Amino acid sequence: MTTVGRACPFASRRGLLAATAGLAGAIVSRSTRADIAPAPEQIPFHGAHQAGILTPQQSHVYFAAFDVTTPHRDALIALLRGWTEAAERLTTGKTAAPLGADLSQPGADSGEVLGLGAARLTLTFGFGPGMFERNGADRFGLAAFRPAALVDLPRFNGDQLVPERSGGDLAVQACADDPQVAFHAVRQLARLAYGTAQLRWVQAGFLPRTPAGETPRNLMGFKDGTNNPAGDDAAATVWAGAEAPSWLQGGSYLVARRIRIALEHWDRTEVDFQEQTMGRRKYSGAPLGANHEFDPLPLSGTDADGNPVIAENAHVRLGAAASTDGARILRRGYAYDDGVSITAERWPPWRQGLEYDAGLFFLAYQRDPRTGFIRIFETMAKLDALNQFTTHTGSALFACPRGVKAGEFIGEALFATG
Amino acid sequence: MTTVGRACPFASRRGLLAATAGLAGAIVSRSTRADIAPAPEQIPFHGAHQAGILTPQQSHVYFAAFDVTTPHRDALIALLRGWTEAAERLTTGKTAAPLGADLSQPGADSGEVLGLGAARLTLTFGFGPGMFERNGADRFGLAAFRPAALVDLPRFNGDQLVPERSGGDLAVQACADDPQVAFHAVRQLARLAYGTAQLRWVQAGFLPRTPAGETPRNLMGFKDGTNNPAGDDAAATVWAGAEAPSWLQGGSYLVARRIRIALEHWDRTEVDFQEQTMGRRKYSGAPLGANHEFDPLPLSGTDADGNPVIAENAHVRLGAAASTDGARILRRGYAYDDGVSITAERWPPWRQGLEYDAGLFFLAYQRDPRTGFIRIFETMAKLDALNQFTTHTGSALFACPRGVKAGEFIGEALFATG
Repeated sequence: MTTVGRACPFASRRGLLAATAGLAGAIVSRSTRADIAPAPEQIPFHGAHQAGILTPQQSHVYFAAFDVTTPHRDALIALLRGWTEAAERLTTGKTAAPLGADLSQPGADSGEVLGLGAARLTLTFGFGPGMFERNGADRFGLAAFRPAALVDLPRFNGDQLVPERSGGDLAVQACADDPQVAFHAVRQLARLAYGTAQLRWVQAGFLPRTPAGETPRNLMGFKDGTNNPAGDDAAATVWAGAEAPSWLQGGSYLVARRIRIALEHWDRTEVDFQEQTMGRRKYSGAPLGANHEFDPLPLSGTDADGNPVIAENAHVRLGAAASTDGARILRRGYAYDDGVSITAERWPPWRQGLEYDAGLFFLAYQRDPRTGFIRIFETMAKLDALNQFTTHTGSALFACPRGVKAGEFIGEALFATG
Repeated sequence: MTTVGRACPFASRRGLLAATAGLAGAIVSRSTRADIAPAPEQIPFHGAHQAGILTPQQSHVYFAAFDVTTPHRDALIALLRGWTEAAERLTTGKTAAPLGADLSQPGADSGEVLGLGAARLTLTFGFGPGMFERNGADRFGLAAFRPAALVDLPRFNGDQLVPERSGGDLAVQACADDPQVAFHAVRQLARLAYGTAQLRWVQAGFLPRTPAGETPRNLMGFKDGTNNPAGDDAAATVWAGAEAPSWLQGGSYLVARRIRIALEHWDRTEVDFQEQTMGRRKYSGAPLGANHEFDPLPLSGTDADGNPVIAENAHVRLGAAASTDGARILRRGYAYDDGVSITAERWPPWRQGLEYDAGLFFLAYQRDPRTGFIRIFETMAKLDALNQFTTHTGSALFACPRGVKAGEFIGEALFATG
């Protein structure tokens, strides 16, 4: 009786020929399918800027932060080169590397996206502070090129950050219209990193299938992103200019925050209170004191008693440019849902039980976090009425290099100067 | 200065009138949208059988198991009635209850699916053993009506079940083509259960956007579901008949298993070894020793040396009806991805590090689990070559009542007999 042995050491080589025939069959059926199915949507990987920043949001994200484990600059460069080559293929719907016909080796790709197309996959890379310096050590000869704006994020009021969900030397934001495509991409990049870098934390997220032209609703039931910059305004918000080191000009800074929301508490809260917390109507999205979603915020409007119609600590007021000396960020967040977990409260009524570990995986791009997220959130973290429902449990900041041309690897200009 | 106070106790009632106007605006814009957008896909909730069993799989699942906390039969009945009424609305794309115009109360629905449509939502309900008996107590006067087939699942070889991810008195399987719609539905049902039942465990999952007519690939990169029964065969597989108690005739039994897969290990495994483990070609899906995905399994085929072309412990052989005395189940599983978590091995090379907490959320329907999943898996759990890559960490069995007619509540026939 023949049985399959334990993996690898005793793997039989039987059936290689037939397996190869099977591979050829798969290739034939794929090209046949291409004739009948609409072309998969592809977002160009190459360009002056990285894709996945101004790209209209795909329905799913799989985000991964890595720790670099190699002490060798060359190995780090080889990783970035390998990631770039893989990203060039993956974003066109190909496997991370050609599968080849030799089935007696592990596959060059795990294969679960064969036939799925690109699904608008984008892969966006970022460098954390640890690339430049860790515990005072200049690990890769890059310390002199650390951008001044790539600060260590301050501790914000109310932060309950979990180290295992924060930080990281390298970041990959994989966005696609298919969750399997997004996860697959990170999985292939993580395989290429074996021995050089390892996963530190990951976070999956999703957006609802909102009809075109409408603003998606977040898990609090409110439209989210109404005032997000668009067009030229978005470009001016995100792309670093001459103030940045040359390798980062045309790049951006990404702030990632994992924000748990007390949905059970929120759901027990009066709708008008929710609206005053936000400063907007729940169902229409209109600012309080206005009629339509895209009306300007009537920040100086008052009611008959002289009270502001948008409260002093309403979320939209504290986030508005008028309250932050013009600070702007481009939000690109996703809902996240990590199931339920035990929560035990240490105050009356000492509630204890399962609560959703769900909320917002906040991703925001900006040309300088000091005058972007940090400026906005330092005030918001102290005053925002929404804080009674939200807890920031993860946090990271990355500098995202400009885009690559064919033949370059991501961040090459940083290493060329170093 | 006016600020928003802390939730509930100090909620201001200002702006109620304007908020109501906002609500009316939302309703207008929704009906306008219905004129220009294609009608959302709806799966009928009423019928002889529950939807979500033979229904073609939607792209996302959010599954929830509940513990019943009330000792009162009437409260349990009221919950099932409330759930049924909410399900009737939710599956047509409506809110769980009319939102109403009074914003000084918590919303009757959390609102995050306004405008999303039904997204083919199905809600499928099941009753666990604890509904009939717990710790020897007949909690709701139902013990006499416990189906013989609703057994306590045996401990299977290799089980590493986590109690917090297993069991449950009530189950809700929410499937939809939008993850926010599926999560939303369970969230509304959980709200309706406050004080009567509480969440015990949840699991989200997804399928890739596979082109129509093709078999989806699982996270191992293999086509999964090729041999799943279809049509009349599927109906014969899942629906309980005269052998079942009358309240369950036309219903089914659901086995849920959370199966973690060692993807990092799998990815390091030779493709031909993977194929021998499965008994199929990875890329084409063809059985070993055959040419096409849907060819019958050549279970008695041998190679030139007289060895079986499909190994004795290959996954497909052990699952085949020929190996299980004809046992059939309808699999309705989803990939799951719960991020990464620390794994520490207690054997050489004492590997320690983050691994994906990802794999298969196995859902299978059958007319009798004793001659379905249990019969198949008792052998498979001992012999399947795939076991070296898989770990079952959660498990549950539920009896799913037949479908409801308008005016009935789910499981009503059980309570009518009790």
